[in-house]
Amino acid sequence: MRFTAEVKVMLKDGISDPQGQTIERALPALGYTGVGEVRVGKRIELKLDAEDADDARAKVEDLCDRLLANTVIESFEVEIS
Amino acid sequence: MRFTAEVKVMLKDGISDPQGQTIERALPALGYTGVGEVRVGKRIELKLDAEDADDARAKVEDLCDRLLANTVIESFEVEIS
Repeated sequence: MRFTAEVKVMLKDGISDPQGQTIERALPALGYTGVGEVRVGKRIELKLDAEDADDARAKVEDLCDRLLANTVIESFEVEIS
Repeated sequence: MRFTAEVKVMLKDGISDPQGQTIERALPALGYTGVGEVRVGKRIELKLDAEDADDARAKVEDLCDRLLANTVIESFEVEIS
């Protein structure tokens, strides 16, 4: 069966997020107040063949560990549909 | 009230996605087959003050139009919680 996976890769708590900080610094000049805790990560969509949803999840988690995320500084979440 | 927003920014259909293509090309060498249609985008989390969920959504969508997404080549989705 063909599954669709959505992978969210975010920097772990405590890891400096320069992209998020840059966005936060730009907001007041654009007139936005009350916006904070901006964190920027990656979102990856892919399709894969697998026997069932559990198999698909296992494959995508393995792929995250090996290629899509740097697990030293990033955490990931996988959703299968 | 304080809301949490999740923003998904993806390249529009038909826009070339070099990051996704690079991941796809790397997969066979890592032993993965049957994986395709890889698309890489951004995921942005932020917190903001707003009167209600509709107000929060309107603010974040405005922010996407102005700063977070390049709407010429990217589309975005906003989830408020």
